[in-house]
Amino acid sequence: MTAPQPPQPKTDLPQEFAFIRRHFSALAGPAALNLQDDAAVFLPAQGQEMVMAVDAMVENVHFLPSDPPDTIGRKLLRCNLSDLAAMGSKPEGWLLAFARPSHITEDWVEQFCQGLAQDQARFGLSLMGGDTTSTAGPLVLSLTIVGSVSPGQAIRRTGASAGDGLWVSGTIGDGALGLRVLQGKLTDPTGHLAQRYRLPQPRVGLPLYGLASAALDVSDGLVQDAGHLARGSGLHVRLEADLVPLSDAARAQGRGWLETCLTGGDDYEILLAVPPEHEQKLMTRPLLETPYGDVPVTRIGRFEAGPVGVSVVDRNGASLNFKANGWSHL
Amino acid sequence: MTAPQPPQPKTDLPQEFAFIRRHFSALAGPAALNLQDDAAVFLPAQGQEMVMAVDAMVENVHFLPSDPPDTIGRKLLRCNLSDLAAMGSKPEGWLLAFARPSHITEDWVEQFCQGLAQDQARFGLSLMGGDTTSTAGPLVLSLTIVGSVSPGQAIRRTGASAGDGLWVSGTIGDGALGLRVLQGKLTDPTGHLAQRYRLPQPRVGLPLYGLASAALDVSDGLVQDAGHLARGSGLHVRLEADLVPLSDAARAQGRGWLETCLTGGDDYEILLAVPPEHEQKLMTRPLLETPYGDVPVTRIGRFEAGPVGVSVVDRNGASLNFKANGWSHL
Repeated sequence: MTAPQPPQPKTDLPQEFAFIRRHFSALAGPAALNLQDDAAVFLPAQGQEMVMAVDAMVENVHFLPSDPPDTIGRKLLRCNLSDLAAMGSKPEGWLLAFARPSHITEDWVEQFCQGLAQDQARFGLSLMGGDTTSTAGPLVLSLTIVGSVSPGQAIRRTGASAGDGLWVSGTIGDGALGLRVLQGKLTDPTGHLAQRYRLPQPRVGLPLYGLASAALDVSDGLVQDAGHLARGSGLHVRLEADLVPLSDAARAQGRGWLETCLTGGDDYEILLAVPPEHEQKLMTRPLLETPYGDVPVTRIGRFEAGPVGVSVVDRNGASLNFKANGWSHL
Repeated sequence: MTAPQPPQPKTDLPQEFAFIRRHFSALAGPAALNLQDDAAVFLPAQGQEMVMAVDAMVENVHFLPSDPPDTIGRKLLRCNLSDLAAMGSKPEGWLLAFARPSHITEDWVEQFCQGLAQDQARFGLSLMGGDTTSTAGPLVLSLTIVGSVSPGQAIRRTGASAGDGLWVSGTIGDGALGLRVLQGKLTDPTGHLAQRYRLPQPRVGLPLYGLASAALDVSDGLVQDAGHLARGSGLHVRLEADLVPLSDAARAQGRGWLETCLTGGDDYEILLAVPPEHEQKLMTRPLLETPYGDVPVTRIGRFEAGPVGVSVVDRNGASLNFKANGWSHL
C-alpha cells in the first residue's frame, strides 16, 4: 500500500481566462468585478432609467479584414454610442461577446483593445463584462451598450407632430462614400470619406431633451431612417434632397453620387423632429453644444399629415425615386 | 416642361425589419419600445442594482446543427439565467444579437422564438432589444441578460473564508454525459442525460443572500469552477470526489466516467461557500426553496488556508489528478 498523495492544488488558468485577463482587464470598470464574476453589478444613479442596445458586426459584412483593428473596435463602440445619443442618454458601460476565428491573432486583439481603451476614455464609459468563444466562421462582435437618462427624458421615435421640422446633425453620405473609396470605386485625395467610414463621430451629449419631439440615429440610410421617424409618429415626412448637408469631400464627387449619400447609411448622425417653437433659435444659430464641441444641425424637411412614410423631393418639388431607401442587414 | 410629380411615400419595410417584427415582436416587453426605437428604456425598481452578463453560443461549438431549435434558444437563455442565479439576482430582461447564416430558415427561427417565449414566461423576464445581421459563417447567438438585486446583496466569488463548506445544487455531470450520448459515445435508455444537456435547469430564485459567502454557476467543469471560487477568495478548496451528487443515470455509466462528470461542464448548477454557522440547517434539511420547487444541495468539500486553488481527493484522502479540470472556449 502506498501512502495517499498530498493534494496538489491546480492554480493555472485555462487559455480562455488568461486571454480575457491579458487583453480586457485594463478596460474593466468597477461594475465589471474584475471580469472574474458571473455578472456585472451596476448601481444606477438615484432614480435614473437604464437605456440599453446591442449591435453586432460581422467580418466581411460590416468591416473589411484589412481595416485597422483599432478602428473596428472603436467603430463598433461608436455605433452603439450613436444609439444612446439618439435617445438623449448618457453612456455608462458596455459588454462584449467576441466570437474569434483562428486567424485573429493576439496582436490583432491587442490593437482592437487599444482602440476601445482610447474611445471609452473619450466617451466616459467602461467595460462591464463579456464572453469569448471560438468560431470556424468570420469574426463576430456583439456589443451591448448601457446608458442612463432621467425618467421621462429619453427621446423616442414616436413623438413628432405635423408641422415639426426634420433636422439632421453633421453631414450625410461621407460613410457610404468612404466605403466606396476603400473598395476602389471612388477616389478622395482628402482622406476625409474613408476616415468617416472607419471612425464615425457619435453625437454623444447632444442636448435633445426640451428641443426634439422625436429622434433616431441615421445608420441604415437617411431616407429609410426618415421613414422610420415618420412611421413612428404616424406622419408623412417630406425630405428636401437639396437641403441635405454634404461635406466638401462628398460634394466634390458630383451629383451622380447623391443617391448613395441619401440611402447608403453608415452616417451615425442624429435625425430629429423639432417643433416650430424650438426651430427659431436653431435658425438663428444652427449649432448644438456637446462636451465634444459644437455640432452643426440643418433643417432638411418637414413632417405633415398625409400618407405615412417619407417622400424625397428636389428644389422644384419633383419627386426623387431611389432604387433602395437604405440598407438591410439580412 | 412637365409638372412636378406629387411625392410618393415609401411605406414598405426592408427585409430586416419585417424579419424582426415577424419573429421577435411577440417576445418584446415594455422596455423594448416595440423593438422600433434606438434602444430599450428600463426603470429599475427603487434603489435596485442592475446585474448584467453576456454569453455567446456558436453553431458546432456550443450546440449541434441537429439540436431542436426551440431548445437552442432556451439553453442560451438558461445559461444566462444561471449567471444571474449565481449572483442571487432576479431576472428582468434580455437582448439578443443574431448573426444568421443562409441555412437558418424562417421555420427554424420560428421554433427558436417559440422556445424563448416559453422560457421567458416561465422565468419572468422579457425581450428588451436586439440586432439581426447576416453571416457567411456558422450561426452566432449573443444574449445579454439583465437582472436586479437589492444593493449589497449580490453574491460574489470573493467572499469565502477558511472553514466554509463547499456546497453544490442538484447533480453534476449529466450535461457532459448527455453530450456524449448525443455524440453516440454513450447510451442512456432513460433519456435523462441528453435532456439535461439540451435543457439545463437554471437555479433561479435560489435564496443565497444570508446563506452563502460566495457563489458561482458551474458551467465550465466542477473542478475548474471550484478553483475559481478558491482563487476568488484567496483560499484552498479540498473537493471530495465521492461526495459529488450524481443522478441515477450518471451513476449507471460507471466510475470510469467520473472524471467526465467532474470536469466536463454544462452543469448550470450553483456552487456555494457556506459558513459553518449556516451549514447546520442545511445538514438537517439539505434543500433550498425556489419558486420552481425545492432544490437539493450537497456538501462536497471545504475551504481551507493553504495553497490557492483546488485539490480533488478520494475517500481515502488520496489526490485525484485529471487531464483537464474543465473547459476553455478558446
